[in-house]
Amino acid sequence: MEIKVIIINGPNLNLTGTREQSVYGKKSFEDFYNEELLTFAEKNNLKLEYFQSNHEGDIIDKIHSSIGEKNFIIINPGALTHYSYAIHDAIAASKIPAIEVHISNIFSREKWRSSSVISPVVIGIISGFGLAGYKLALQYVLEYLC
Amino acid sequence: MEIKVIIINGPNLNLTGTREQSVYGKKSFEDFYNEELLTFAEKNNLKLEYFQSNHEGDIIDKIHSSIGEKNFIIINPGALTHYSYAIHDAIAASKIPAIEVHISNIFSREKWRSSSVISPVVIGIISGFGLAGYKLALQYVLEYLC
Amino acid sequence: MEIKVIIINGPNLNLTGTREQSVYGKKSFEDFYNEELLTFAEKNNLKLEYFQSNHEGDIIDKIHSSIGEKNFIIINPGALTHYSYAIHDAIAASKIPAIEVHISNIFSREKWRSSSVISPVVIGIISGFGLAGYKLALQYVLEYLC
Amino acid sequence: MEIKVIIINGPNLNLTGTREQSVYGKKSFEDFYNEELLTFAEKNNLKLEYFQSNHEGDIIDKIHSSIGEKNFIIINPGALTHYSYAIHDAIAASKIPAIEVHISNIFSREKWRSSSVISPVVIGIISGFGLAGYKLALQYVLEYLC
Amino acid sequence: MEIKVIIINGPNLNLTGTREQSVYGKKSFEDFYNEELLTFAEKNNLKLEYFQSNHEGDIIDKIHSSIGEKNFIIINPGALTHYSYAIHDAIAASKIPAIEVHISNIFSREKWRSSSVISPVVIGIISGFGLAGYKLALQYVLEYLC
Amino acid sequence: MEIKVIIINGPNLNLTGTREQSVYGKKSFEDFYNEELLTFAEKNNLKLEYFQSNHEGDIIDKIHSSIGEKNFIIINPGALTHYSYAIHDAIAASKIPAIEVHISNIFSREKWRSSSVISPVVIGIISGFGLAGYKLALQYVLEYLC
Amino acid sequence: MEIKVIIINGPNLNLTGTREQSVYGKKSFEDFYNEELLTFAEKNNLKLEYFQSNHEGDIIDKIHSSIGEKNFIIINPGALTHYSYAIHDAIAASKIPAIEVHISNIFSREKWRSSSVISPVVIGIISGFGLAGYKLALQYVLEYLC
Amino acid sequence: MEIKVIIINGPNLNLTGTREQSVYGKKSFEDFYNEELLTFAEKNNLKLEYFQSNHEGDIIDKIHSSIGEKNFIIINPGALTHYSYAIHDAIAASKIPAIEVHISNIFSREKWRSSSVISPVVIGIISGFGLAGYKLALQYVLEYLC
Amino acid sequence: MEIKVIIINGPNLNLTGTREQSVYGKKSFEDFYNEELLTFAEKNNLKLEYFQSNHEGDIIDKIHSSIGEKNFIIINPGALTHYSYAIHDAIAASKIPAIEVHISNIFSREKWRSSSVISPVVIGIISGFGLAGYKLALQYVLEYLC
Amino acid sequence: MEIKVIIINGPNLNLTGTREQSVYGKKSFEDFYNEELLTFAEKNNLKLEYFQSNHEGDIIDKIHSSIGEKNFIIINPGALTHYSYAIHDAIAASKIPAIEVHISNIFSREKWRSSSVISPVVIGIISGFGLAGYKLALQYVLEYLC
Amino acid sequence: MEIKVIIINGPNLNLTGTREQSVYGKKSFEDFYNEELLTFAEKNNLKLEYFQSNHEGDIIDKIHSSIGEKNFIIINPGALTHYSYAIHDAIAASKIPAIEVHISNIFSREKWRSSSVISPVVIGIISGFGLAGYKLALQYVLEYLC
Amino acid sequence: MEIKVIIINGPNLNLTGTREQSVYGKKSFEDFYNEELLTFAEKNNLKLEYFQSNHEGDIIDKIHSSIGEKNFIIINPGALTHYSYAIHDAIAASKIPAIEVHISNIFSREKWRSSSVISPVVIGIISGFGLAGYKLALQYVLEYLC
Repeated sequence: MEIKVIIINGPNLNLTGTREQSVYGKKSFEDFYNEELLTFAEKNNLKLEYFQSNHEGDIIDKIHSSIGEKNFIIINPGALTHYSYAIHDAIAASKIPAIEVHISNIFSREKWRSSSVISPVVIGIISGFGLAGYKLALQYVLEYLC
Repeated sequence: MEIKVIIINGPNLNLTGTREQSVYGKKSFEDFYNEELLTFAEKNNLKLEYFQSNHEGDIIDKIHSSIGEKNFIIINPGALTHYSYAIHDAIAASKIPAIEVHISNIFSREKWRSSSVISPVVIGIISGFGLAGYKLALQYVLEYLC
Repeated sequence: MEIKVIIINGPNLNLTGTREQSVYGKKSFEDFYNEELLTFAEKNNLKLEYFQSNHEGDIIDKIHSSIGEKNFIIINPGALTHYSYAIHDAIAASKIPAIEVHISNIFSREKWRSSSVISPVVIGIISGFGLAGYKLALQYVLEYLC
Repeated sequence: MEIKVIIINGPNLNLTGTREQSVYGKKSFEDFYNEELLTFAEKNNLKLEYFQSNHEGDIIDKIHSSIGEKNFIIINPGALTHYSYAIHDAIAASKIPAIEVHISNIFSREKWRSSSVISPVVIGIISGFGLAGYKLALQYVLEYLC
Repeated sequence: MEIKVIIINGPNLNLTGTREQSVYGKKSFEDFYNEELLTFAEKNNLKLEYFQSNHEGDIIDKIHSSIGEKNFIIINPGALTHYSYAIHDAIAASKIPAIEVHISNIFSREKWRSSSVISPVVIGIISGFGLAGYKLALQYVLEYLC
Repeated sequence: MEIKVIIINGPNLNLTGTREQSVYGKKSFEDFYNEELLTFAEKNNLKLEYFQSNHEGDIIDKIHSSIGEKNFIIINPGALTHYSYAIHDAIAASKIPAIEVHISNIFSREKWRSSSVISPVVIGIISGFGLAGYKLALQYVLEYLC
Repeated sequence: MEIKVIIINGPNLNLTGTREQSVYGKKSFEDFYNEELLTFAEKNNLKLEYFQSNHEGDIIDKIHSSIGEKNFIIINPGALTHYSYAIHDAIAASKIPAIEVHISNIFSREKWRSSSVISPVVIGIISGFGLAGYKLALQYVLEYLC
Repeated sequence: MEIKVIIINGPNLNLTGTREQSVYGKKSFEDFYNEELLTFAEKNNLKLEYFQSNHEGDIIDKIHSSIGEKNFIIINPGALTHYSYAIHDAIAASKIPAIEVHISNIFSREKWRSSSVISPVVIGIISGFGLAGYKLALQYVLEYLC
Repeated sequence: MEIKVIIINGPNLNLTGTREQSVYGKKSFEDFYNEELLTFAEKNNLKLEYFQSNHEGDIIDKIHSSIGEKNFIIINPGALTHYSYAIHDAIAASKIPAIEVHISNIFSREKWRSSSVISPVVIGIISGFGLAGYKLALQYVLEYLC
Repeated sequence: MEIKVIIINGPNLNLTGTREQSVYGKKSFEDFYNEELLTFAEKNNLKLEYFQSNHEGDIIDKIHSSIGEKNFIIINPGALTHYSYAIHDAIAASKIPAIEVHISNIFSREKWRSSSVISPVVIGIISGFGLAGYKLALQYVLEYLC
Repeated sequence: MEIKVIIINGPNLNLTGTREQSVYGKKSFEDFYNEELLTFAEKNNLKLEYFQSNHEGDIIDKIHSSIGEKNFIIINPGALTHYSYAIHDAIAASKIPAIEVHISNIFSREKWRSSSVISPVVIGIISGFGLAGYKLALQYVLEYLC
Repeated sequence: MEIKVIIINGPNLNLTGTREQSVYGKKSFEDFYNEELLTFAEKNNLKLEYFQSNHEGDIIDKIHSSIGEKNFIIINPGALTHYSYAIHDAIAASKIPAIEVHISNIFSREKWRSSSVISPVVIGIISGFGLAGYKLALQYVLEYLC
């Protein structure tokens, strides 16, 4: 059986690789996605989709349209992490198992970054491992399915 | 005179009837709207419009376009209730009398659900009566106009 | 079957119509009760009782004596809303479905008025619709029973 | 014209003179009332009434029955000072000018004693002058009427 | 010498045995009092009195009237535990040694139940042992008197 | 024996009568002092001195120089009330009995005005009675000395 | 060299001139922009663009597309000022020097308006000067470039 | 059947009888244990063990080794009461019914002593009755087993 | 008509140009005043006065003496911004329109710098534009007078 | 080159598999370590050591002795996560790159579990993935070394 | 080389020896200065100056005039410790190494005394050692210069 | 008479000289102890003992065993400073005069470092003077004994 996974990135993550490189690294997410994540997915029979938006509403729409279509959500809500209760509700309503990923360690930066309104409705959180965090999330999907 | 009322539902309310049924009930809003609210409205000479969006910006746009067009707003901002000061400002700026409705009792759930940034600019709030809350809001519109 | 509903009003609500008219309106609760609520109740086969007291203890006693006698409580605890955990416990212990009503919009006044210790144990809350709020509560009772 | 003033004492103030003498002094309020306040009132054409209760509800009832009967309220709500929003509302609703008196300096004791929910609706507060505080309140009544 | 002990129960404790049995148990306080506490008291030369009220004012009056009459107060203030500074003051003013009892473990329930405004003026607190807590309190009275 | 009393007014109180008349009244302090307070003092064998400064340091210096010279301090620290711990310490160090006076009711204005860092070291506080508050303070001095 | 400046207005600012005139003034932003800002810009060799949206996501998209295109951002995020960490991140990521403008004095209104999550990433803030604030921002751009 | 009970005392309780006698009394715990608790236990067929340590880790180890060995834990965690979430977890993980005892009334001392992180996982708490509190705990064990 | 403007600088602003140059820049205020502000003022028919003091009281005295003398106050209260309610009251009492200027962006530094007790009584605030902020303030004065 | 990794588990993690299975799963850490982690490590040329203690001091000692001996620390501090600033300092002082792992999602449980005093000094945090979290940490070690 | 040290004492410290002797001791600072500090300084080639003022502004002026003149500041800001951000800024701007001294242990008195706004800009703090604290500060100056 | 002083260092202080040198300096405590403190002690007839542990329990045991053996405790509790109420109680129970020393200025680092739970039970605190702080503490011991 093929496992369908959607990766959802929130605001400003389209700038990864450009934006504050000391915090987010030098590689763009797109490059990483194409070079590493797709390769990994193919090898492990995962079907990946990637979606990025700077619009909270688009992210919610995407979560809704994933219902019945996807087996897993990997989500990095960007700064929406800290206030978007609407995304919280969308994930909870979707009942799709979800993993929260952050590129940087959100617990060692500004105080407001250290609380996530999303965390209570995900399986778990992976924060601080750079783009590799997305790969760890995929590896967990494989563990989860065994 | 015909009274024009718009019902505005925020994020995730399109999933009512599917989403967490123990909290929000089993009936979809659309069914309820068609079966109960439209019937009620017709009987009482109210002209209803229904609008749902997962986008804060769309909701604000809709409130703006209701200026001079609608006599009443019935709004359930979903999770935006708890942080959308922009909707707060839109309602205040519109000067259209508004009623805030919540399907569940937002005061008996997670702590963050118990405060609404919208409440200070509405006539009143109706929370916890399931979909019937929308009907109570319409009944108030009638009372208000007498 | 006749449905028995008790309306319980807390401190200072006996002064409605006199007290701060810009906030609470000009009609006394008694007049409204006799002219509107009783009429509405009769038409809909509801048996109403009305009780007002400035004493927390009397309100608790009344809730206790309603056990097994009433099908619904409509309660406006007045300022006790904000600190009477004893009324909270009385409603919870009674297991009678209850509706919390406030004449004014308690969320647009002093900060201390915006939290209710009663809300977690009621079905729902109706706040800001003037005396009409009590009528909406009765209308909900009818919805609830259908 | 005779000025009618009611002095309302809240819970435990009937024990003044017995209760913690280092804080509240050795004289009972009754003795002070009879020996000093009544004498002062007579001399100055004030008509005094004194009321004490340990029941919040009784105090509210008394404030209500003072409407149209009294020109001034002097109130020491005892420990109710710190939580009885119902008395706050009663004074505001009565529209009778009121003075808040405390025997001890409530600002130099336990932290919870240093905030009064009553203060926002009185003309002023007199705290820390022992039983003499009541006399100062009467003296203000005279000033006020000049 | 006979030791006189008064047990004072606050709001809603008259419903023990009926009210939320999973929290408060199935036995009514009255049965427990008659079957266990009175028996225990007689055997140990304690003279018990039992008083319950839903009125804060009645409880204060009772504490006042216990001055010079009782050697010990065992008090379960019910929900008044969390806000009745007036009972706090009454116990302090009475100078009668007092024990605070709670049937449930108030520290493992809603957050607001975990703080008692009464505790600073009692000898000690016994919470969570069901009705047996009252018996422990009596046993302490015996220890205290040895 | 002649009793020496110093009245110390803090920042902006030199503008009383001009400044926000709806809050502070229309009479200047100087006029009131000359017309009412001095007259009252003479009649009652009190020797008054009046001192005003916009400088915290001057007020502290004045309190220091009052040691051994004055029997009573009547102080209205103006806005320094809310942060001048240095004046707090000066009063405490002086050991001169002090009365804190405020023209307006500081408890019914902005939240930051409702706490005084001075109150813990004075005998008592008189707030809200306009300029008459100073006279009440003098009357207390007389009571105190009896 | 021509300096390119984009003015970005957030939610509800399209209603300026209509919306709460006592707070925001009577002139619409569009009129002011055309009559005053464009004129000023032309005279000073600034190239202005104006963008307004009620959508947080659109504003972020616009900031992104300004990278490499604009020399300055003048932003009035409207109510998003108080919670849009996503706009905060967008400005920081863009590295374009930005100025935050508010028409009203956000520090003298509701408490929640007095904190801006945007301020830490802008050069400076101009608040309270009506529409003229935008002109001051442009004047700063000229100062900055000298 | 013999009931096995372990009494665990935390940091500094080895000094009882020496340490601050006005707070903790003059008798050492060891004397009390030998003279009173062992006697009481023998009479009532309870098998007692006593353990004291100033090391959080030792206390956790002891709780672990009590699993399957003890029927009841009576624990006075000393100052660890206020921060040792690790002991909280150990008690919860052990599933052994536990009673929390404090010699002094922790609710009438420094503010930080009034909250216990242990309380949510014990049956109940006994605080303020001196060493007699341990005996009350044993008496509850007997009640519990009937 | 000549417009009279006073610029008031608070504590430590006499050191501008020396003090922490990375935060406050390298130019002294005096140089900037002479070279830029005076020139600008002359051109625009404004009459400037400049006043600096490290004494809160001197600043208050200066505000008082500006009543009836000045048309505008431009004030940078330095660190007094964060606690001098006395200056707040002085500005309010003076009724002179005032502008608050800060050289650095007080919202991107230590947390305590991000709240100003002065802001509620000024027309507006300009923060973060270096010494140019003073010039912007003057430019606003001109706008204001048109 | 062989990479040396130490896994350090804090209090109560020796009970995994026994303790609250709905939260922590049914497998013991030891079994998982032997069956999965060691196998994985061997395959990838990692040299693992495992250490568990209920003693904060032992954990600190172990971190110290890892200096110069280990290339990576994987640490699950158990409940010490929430208060052991001493472990925080030990990790920071060791300068060994560290990963924080939690078996459960600490952000969806009691509020006190949602903040970690350790997080600011680790590379990243992995929480909520059961025992698989340790494997993800090892996988990150491999990524990190590439 | 001679080292120049200025000792700056804030409000009320001129009263040391008189003021609350149980807290501050019986010796006046002046006596201590003359008898002990000057002697110590001479022996160790330090040149001392002593300055005391009750005026925040004077203290700031003195710090400013010490720039380029003194090698060390020893400062006891008295109650200004707790709110004078202006002195904080003055010390930071002066770049003179500074030591904060308090006669009493400010951490074991009223809560507001336990935080110092000055501490972040000094080398270190010495609190609780009576007048000897100043001598310790001088001894540190000697250590520092070695 | 020989004075016996024990220096107790808490967690991670064994790493001084290695650990974060910019904060704690480059010299190891052991070297400093041997080279400076022992020499100083000998010259002044003090008998020093040094003890370091990473275990809270060991530190408490050491304090207990110092009772009757030592005349002074100099303690640097490391990170335990911020949460070990158990050490607080141990010092208080020991009645040995104690001095709290910190190498760094704990008031200019992370916020959680700025409060000490130990401070209320020591004579005084010395913080920020590097290893020299220990020497200052010894010097105070000599002052104290004179």
